[in-house]
Order: sequence, then C-alpha cells, then structure tokens
Amino acid sequence: MFTKQIDRVAIVGSTHGNELLGIYLVKKYQLDPELVKRTTFETITFLANPRAFKLGTRYVDKDLNRCFHKEDLANSKLNSYEDLRAKEINNFYSDNLDFLIDIHSTTSNAGIMIILEKGFEKDPLILNLSAYLVQVNPLVRLFCWSKTQLKNRLRSVARKSIAIEIGAIAHGTLNAEYFQQTEQLIQNILDFLNCYNQKLAIPIISDIEVFEGQQLRDYPRDRHGELTAMIHPELEDYKALNFGDPIFMTFEGQTIAYQNTSTFYPVFIGEASYQKKKIAFVLCSKQIIQTRVDYFADDRL
Amino acid sequence: MFTKQIDRVAIVGSTHGNELLGIYLVKKYQLDPELVKRTTFETITFLANPRAFKLGTRYVDKDLNRCFHKEDLANSKLNSYEDLRAKEINNFYSDNLDFLIDIHSTTSNAGIMIILEKGFEKDPLILNLSAYLVQVNPLVRLFCWSKTQLKNRLRSVARKSIAIEIGAIAHGTLNAEYFQQTEQLIQNILDFLNCYNQKLAIPIISDIEVFEGQQLRDYPRDRHGELTAMIHPELEDYKALNFGDPIFMTFEGQTIAYQNTSTFYPVFIGEASYQKKKIAFVLCSKQIIQTRVDYFADDRL
Repeated sequence: MFTKQIDRVAIVGSTHGNELLGIYLVKKYQLDPELVKRTTFETITFLANPRAFKLGTRYVDKDLNRCFHKEDLANSKLNSYEDLRAKEINNFYSDNLDFLIDIHSTTSNAGIMIILEKGFEKDPLILNLSAYLVQVNPLVRLFCWSKTQLKNRLRSVARKSIAIEIGAIAHGTLNAEYFQQTEQLIQNILDFLNCYNQKLAIPIISDIEVFEGQQLRDYPRDRHGELTAMIHPELEDYKALNFGDPIFMTFEGQTIAYQNTSTFYPVFIGEASYQKKKIAFVLCSKQIIQTRVDYFADDRL
Repeated sequence: MFTKQIDRVAIVGSTHGNELLGIYLVKKYQLDPELVKRTTFETITFLANPRAFKLGTRYVDKDLNRCFHKEDLANSKLNSYEDLRAKEINNFYSDNLDFLIDIHSTTSNAGIMIILEKGFEKDPLILNLSAYLVQVNPLVRLFCWSKTQLKNRLRSVARKSIAIEIGAIAHGTLNAEYFQQTEQLIQNILDFLNCYNQKLAIPIISDIEVFEGQQLRDYPRDRHGELTAMIHPELEDYKALNFGDPIFMTFEGQTIAYQNTSTFYPVFIGEASYQKKKIAFVLCSKQIIQTRVDYFADDRL
C-alpha cells in the first residue's frame, strides 16, 4: 500500500545543544543545500536550539525534546526559552512536514542507531526504510521504545519521522568518522524517500532486528540518591545479558550481577544525560521483523 | 637534598564539576578515610566545587581552576560563586598543605597523565615521585606546560602539588577501569610520600619522558569563529607529528596536514571544554630527564 507522497523533509540538529555532530552536519547542509536536494521533495534544515548550542549545553531551561506535548504547546503560561522555541517550531512546521530526521549523539557506545516509534512496522515506508538502511550498512542498529514516547518529542511535529543516535561521542565534541558515516546515512535516507515518491523498486533482502526498549535500569544508589556503583567494564551495548552477567561495579570494586532470568540487551549504557533521569541503561528485547521483498515493485504493479 | 617533611596532603575532586571520576573517588575516601591514611602525614579530602557537581556542569559562573590568582583572591569585588569558593578554599588550606593532588578527567585520549609544573625537575620530591609513578605503571604519562600556569590554579594553595588527568571520559560519566587505575595511582603517590618522610630508599631505575606543552593549536574556523573542521581520525595523543601528517578533516572531508617542520607530540586532542578556549590540541616537545638512582638512600647516608 503506497501512502501519501513525501513532499517536504526536515533535517534537524541541536535538539540538544551539546550534541555537535548533527549541528555541524546541518550547518554543512545550510552552506551547500544541493547536498540534500532531491527531485521529488523539498528538503529544509534547521537548528532546533541555537541558544543551547551557543552555550554548549543540552538546553537552556529545560529539555526541548520534552516540550512538544500538545497540551504544553497550547499552554500560554509555559514560557521558558525551550517552551517558546517549541511553540515556534510547531507553528512553523506542524502540518507541513512529511518527514523529519532528528540527529542526536550519545556518550554511550551506540554506534549508528535509528530510533523508530512503537508500531513502525505497520508503516510500510518506515519499515522498508529501516530494512534498506540496515541492508546498505549492516552496522546500523534499529531501536524503538515499547511504549510510545513520541508525544512530547520534537519530531512529533512531522507526519513521519526518525531520530538518529550516534556514539560514543562526548558532549561538546565531534568525531570525523561518525560525522561521515552519519552523512552517508542521511544520503541513504533521502535516496530512499526519493525512490519511494517515484515508486521505484528497492529490493529488501532480509528481515530486520529491532531492539525494543522494555525497562529502564538505574544505577545502584545510596539513600541520598548518590551513585554507589559504575557501569561494569564488561557490560556492552547490544550484547545479550544473561542471569549472573556483571552489570555494575561498586566503588569498592565489587561486581553486581544481572539477576533477571530473562535475557535482555542493554543500550544507552552510561549515557551522561540519563544519569540524572535515573537511567544507567535501557534493557531491550530483540525482535525479528519480516520485511516484504521488492515492496515498491509490488506497489507499482 | 631532603627538604621539609610532608605533614598534610589534600586529595581534591570536582575542581571541575562534571569530571565525575575524581568526585566519586573523593567521596569513597570520605566514607573510608583509612584508605588514604599513612603513618607520617595527615590526609584530607574535599570537593572543590560541590555546586557545579550538583548541576552537572564544569562550573557555575566561571572556571574555579582560574580563580586562584593572588590578586583575585584579595579582590573583594570578585564575588561569583567560584570567586567566593576560591577565597574559602584559600583561607582554609593555604599555608597548611604540603601536598595537593587535584583529580581531573578529560574527553581526550590522555590515558593516565600527571600534570607537573615547569621546573619540577629541580624539586627532588616531585622529580622522584614522577619517576616512581612511571616505574610502577609504565602507562603513566608526564606532562608539564612550558610556561608556568600554576598561579591561578586551585593546586597553587599547597606548597607542592600535581594534577591528574584521566581520559578519554565523557563529561558526566564514569569509567570503572580508569577509576581503579586512578585509585592505584593515588595509593602509589601516598606510599611514595610516606617513604619520603621516612627517608626510605625507593630505587628509581630509569630516566623519564616528559611532554612539555609548547603551543596551543586551534581548530580551523571561518570568519565568524565557527569550526570548519574536525580532529582527523589519524591524529593521536602522544604520537609524533611530522610535516605532512593529517591533523584536521574539514566537514567536506578534506584532510588538513601538519605544516610545521618541527616534530611535536599532540595532547589534549579534542578536549570538549577547550573548544571554546580555541584549543584543538596542545603541541608538546618530548624531554628526557635524568633521575638519580636510590635518591632517598643517598639522603639517608
């Protein structure tokens, strides 16, 4: 089922102001818009939180990527810098964006991660795009939250969207290799959307693996809320975690083992900005999702 | 020449509030002071900038580690949080600390680095301590600035001091392996100082290699001061940089080569907090400094 044409695509950086990779990628596109131009749709680019970028911080007053709840956007009493910026972005772009790519980076060892929304597999465009991106670059990992998290996110202003997470990159730094890999990823996304609009066949070879975030796991803490342990050196993003595997190491050097009998896969391990949110890592299930072969070819027939 | 006994040692964390490793190490020592107790001196520990730590930022108003200039400490008009904290620390500790260990972490790939002051080799205690630390752990690197930088630094409140830099660690994160290595390093420092006080011989085997910071190198920038390039993936901390070696990669993917005919060694490559200070990396010369064998044994005779 071929749905509505993609007419307008946005590429967004600085949703978090200290995640430099997306910011400098957007700046590059703004200097040379031809790079993201395609024949069948318009591409726009913007920096979501320029003031936080200038300050070198994640945000000025509050996390911009939690300010897009419809009720909050309609609440005239909310007037922090990010609240006002969210309203501005929403006024500018809601109802006129078919697709939005929100570029983030993380201090966790995420590699190249695409964040999808729960139920994405019911959207043929997103499902096949995901499969295509993994096919072109097998290092791409797919992640979605088990509960819908989109409501208050910036990317909810668009009809369809994905977020990109790249890491490990320390806040306030760049990484040339990841910069180029992200650039290639975005070219692949735009190429795919262009094929989609033209109903051109892109053969999708294989099923896809999706890490679905099920549980948040906090650090061990004392009664004052202070950390009592660190991430264990053996804990790795995307690696199956079984009963008895080490997850934390106390400051005294003692190992804390995983006590769950279900196998999960940790991601966002040790992300700096999640520590205050009481998240040491996210435990995921791993789903295999079938993709249809030659999806667009079928549509064309 | 055996100089004055070491009577009081301070171990300091959170000189920068988002460098967590030193902070949690100091917290550990505060819970279990026996760990840093020695027979011949008193050890105290403190968090220099607890408010920045709570906020998860490098500092509240200004860099605390630039607030210790004598004139500034005497200037009653300077009353930012960090100015006041500097005065407080100075009032508490100046003239009663013989040795101070200031623990930092860096987003650059520093490994375990000891920061010494220009002319340290004229101080038998510091020279032999440095040689001992490298002897015990050959991964320890020694660094000093070619010009004296100590004047406005926190550690200038003590009669003698060193700083420790550990990395790569993203701001706001911990690393269990580096935590334990730093802990061992501090044990070695305290053990050495204890031997020094007792004039016990510690045989020093070899000469030491010191990276001396000679030049600051900024990122390529456009006329608005915006970055136009990233650190090149082949640029490595401590690795000899010769004419023609790649140092930066532009956002367009072009390599910018090192154009200096003198060989230098880059350190602090891509440190997040240095970007605003217009430092992409520090170019060092490498000095070999002779150390005397069985220094304290000689003294005892």
